[in-house]
Amino acid sequence: MRIEIVCTGDEVLTGKIVNTNFSYMTQKLEDAGLSVVWGTTVGDDRDSLLSAFRLAGGRADIVIVNGGLGPTVDDLSQEIAAQAAGVELVLHEEWLEKMEGFFTRRGRAMPPNNRKQAMLPAGAEMLDNPIGTACGFAMDIGGARFFFTPGVPRELRRMLEEQIIPRLLARSGAPATIRLKRYHGYGLGESHVDSLLAGVEALGPDGSVKLGFRAHYPQIETKLTIRGSDPEDVARKLAPVDAEVRRRLGNFIIAEDDQTLEGVVLAALQSQAATLALVESFTGGQIAMRLLPLPGGEAVLRRATASRDPAQLLAAVGLPAREVGEYDEALAGAVAGTARAAAGASHGMAVLIDLDEGADRMDLGGTIWVAIAAETGSVVRRARILGGREWIRLGAVELGLDCLRRHLQGLPVAERIDFEKA
Amino acid sequence: MRIEIVCTGDEVLTGKIVNTNFSYMTQKLEDAGLSVVWGTTVGDDRDSLLSAFRLAGGRADIVIVNGGLGPTVDDLSQEIAAQAAGVELVLHEEWLEKMEGFFTRRGRAMPPNNRKQAMLPAGAEMLDNPIGTACGFAMDIGGARFFFTPGVPRELRRMLEEQIIPRLLARSGAPATIRLKRYHGYGLGESHVDSLLAGVEALGPDGSVKLGFRAHYPQIETKLTIRGSDPEDVARKLAPVDAEVRRRLGNFIIAEDDQTLEGVVLAALQSQAATLALVESFTGGQIAMRLLPLPGGEAVLRRATASRDPAQLLAAVGLPAREVGEYDEALAGAVAGTARAAAGASHGMAVLIDLDEGADRMDLGGTIWVAIAAETGSVVRRARILGGREWIRLGAVELGLDCLRRHLQGLPVAERIDFEKA
Repeated sequence: MRIEIVCTGDEVLTGKIVNTNFSYMTQKLEDAGLSVVWGTTVGDDRDSLLSAFRLAGGRADIVIVNGGLGPTVDDLSQEIAAQAAGVELVLHEEWLEKMEGFFTRRGRAMPPNNRKQAMLPAGAEMLDNPIGTACGFAMDIGGARFFFTPGVPRELRRMLEEQIIPRLLARSGAPATIRLKRYHGYGLGESHVDSLLAGVEALGPDGSVKLGFRAHYPQIETKLTIRGSDPEDVARKLAPVDAEVRRRLGNFIIAEDDQTLEGVVLAALQSQAATLALVESFTGGQIAMRLLPLPGGEAVLRRATASRDPAQLLAAVGLPAREVGEYDEALAGAVAGTARAAAGASHGMAVLIDLDEGADRMDLGGTIWVAIAAETGSVVRRARILGGREWIRLGAVELGLDCLRRHLQGLPVAERIDFEKA
Repeated sequence: MRIEIVCTGDEVLTGKIVNTNFSYMTQKLEDAGLSVVWGTTVGDDRDSLLSAFRLAGGRADIVIVNGGLGPTVDDLSQEIAAQAAGVELVLHEEWLEKMEGFFTRRGRAMPPNNRKQAMLPAGAEMLDNPIGTACGFAMDIGGARFFFTPGVPRELRRMLEEQIIPRLLARSGAPATIRLKRYHGYGLGESHVDSLLAGVEALGPDGSVKLGFRAHYPQIETKLTIRGSDPEDVARKLAPVDAEVRRRLGNFIIAEDDQTLEGVVLAALQSQAATLALVESFTGGQIAMRLLPLPGGEAVLRRATASRDPAQLLAAVGLPAREVGEYDEALAGAVAGTARAAAGASHGMAVLIDLDEGADRMDLGGTIWVAIAAETGSVVRRARILGGREWIRLGAVELGLDCLRRHLQGLPVAERIDFEKA
């Protein structure tokens, strides 16, 4: 099944906005085992749109068009779709009523130009948009089935997932239900994960489970795509593979599906009614920035301090001034403990880095100290990472968050990771 | 002149990476007065590439192809370009030597597969890549002039700006030199800036200066595109317009061209050999995050503290515990002053927010207190902003940085901005 995507709109074509809808769609379709082979981007221009629709209709089986369904005069998708198929635009009464209800519920009258959004090419199948006034629609142009979608990202996402992908899977003859199961890992390199998981696909019956990876340092994502006749069938096929992936990756799974490491850490703190005092150095405050924007983050992270200069850092947490050459285990523990006490928090964490001397370079190293203080005592983890300043910085942020996750989940905090050098 | 862009590569087509190269190219070309009318995205696939090159060559005057110039087997641009034009690939001795020198300078032998990068279609014009091993090239396919560029963003950017845009401007018959002058503003809404700058274009002779805006709350960018015969001509045409823009926007210009507000603030602090202690509340540490990652940022920002809870915040800076209802001028000043003293910094800044009661909504308001303490005394700025939590948060971050900029530049700190409510 040959799938093409046509993105429309002057804002996308002129680079005023980065076209994240395109990558979102292709990724979602790939995850469902559907490959996009051609992408076209054109502006809000009648000739270009008509030409793009005709070319795609002559080459593809499926075409997804994004954008151009709004109420203004430069939104042309319905008009040009009708022209390309040689049909008229007709009023879709059902959608008009739905739009009017949409405005009525907000205590407003529908502006007259919204009526345009209910004009669909004759014979088109309406695709519901439960969160906006732009309905989608499907119709044939040339030899292809076209799906027209709104440009607003959250409306597109919902329509793609709920309405278009199921229709494409039905057309492709593939099993009707597909699920993407994701495990986010930290501490293992891609080739290591690949070898650890050798053969797990075979545990899924009849090739129904496909394994894939996406590495983005310092995390690695392991993806399982499972096909089945219905959700129960998918769950049954996934179960043995899921159990084996968990057994093999073990403590290195930091989050699953839409979870994030920082979200898992915050949820663990919240479930224990815990609070955190955080002190970080050389990370540019990135650990705090991962936690603070989350809902409830500012309540749990009672105090966040970032300082590059060791003397400043000691003073900021209330430790007596002293000469600091390099950090050590005792000092890291004292920083975490003092920060915890000063903030009256249940947990204190310090992430401190001794960077090697010299200019930044590919093999520049750093020593990372992660100290976690709690009522039950404190733990300090030391790690050496090579790879230059930014690599060390990114690694330290992830290591700090992961040590806290492990601590809160009762897992060993000091388990060796692939990025560490002896 | 009809310009098309062809982006190649499985990673872009499957959404593994978001295609920022496309928006970068179209934006840069727009800034030079050159409009892109069609974009195509295809994978590393011979049939698709050939078809894409032939279609574009049959429609366009100019085609920019991005990606596919690497040393691996899935990099196909040269091969398919030669096929589309019906010519052979020939070894470009000059580029081969340059690549060998590139590796020699790094103390390594050139791997054999890099030789492929010096194989160009016969008759192609080489486009230099001073920072990578993928040279670009230009050639005719069908009725269009094709420019092939590397996929690595910084290599593409340099080649586009230094080599391709000048060639396109020469072909388009437009004046040979074009310059984009940008002013970043904060505190004025788009319609206000628009009316303030009414008529400034006319100060440039013969329609040589074009005015445009790009609003992205809380900043607004004012752009002047100036065309001339050479850099001196452009400078002469820009001068009267530039002077008038500065006169009319005045203190609201926070940065220019590639500068950022945080960069301007950091540079001002550095030029005064100043250091900063920062305390922020409800901003999620975003002010620190703007300053810390900049080169030298961690040296200047001696101590950064973020805390949502007023009691925590007072304790963190070393102020005695007390009941805090709402912040006030005296308290904001005390926080900035105490933080400054505790860190031994030349400047202290506190950005504190009293959010109105109730659920988040479009008209939720907040009172922002910005206090700056220095050797010469302290200043406190109060502002009321309506627009919901995120709007207030973004506004407070920008207001805090802008107050510090004004203070360091000797400008009035408390100048009313458009986003403020009485």
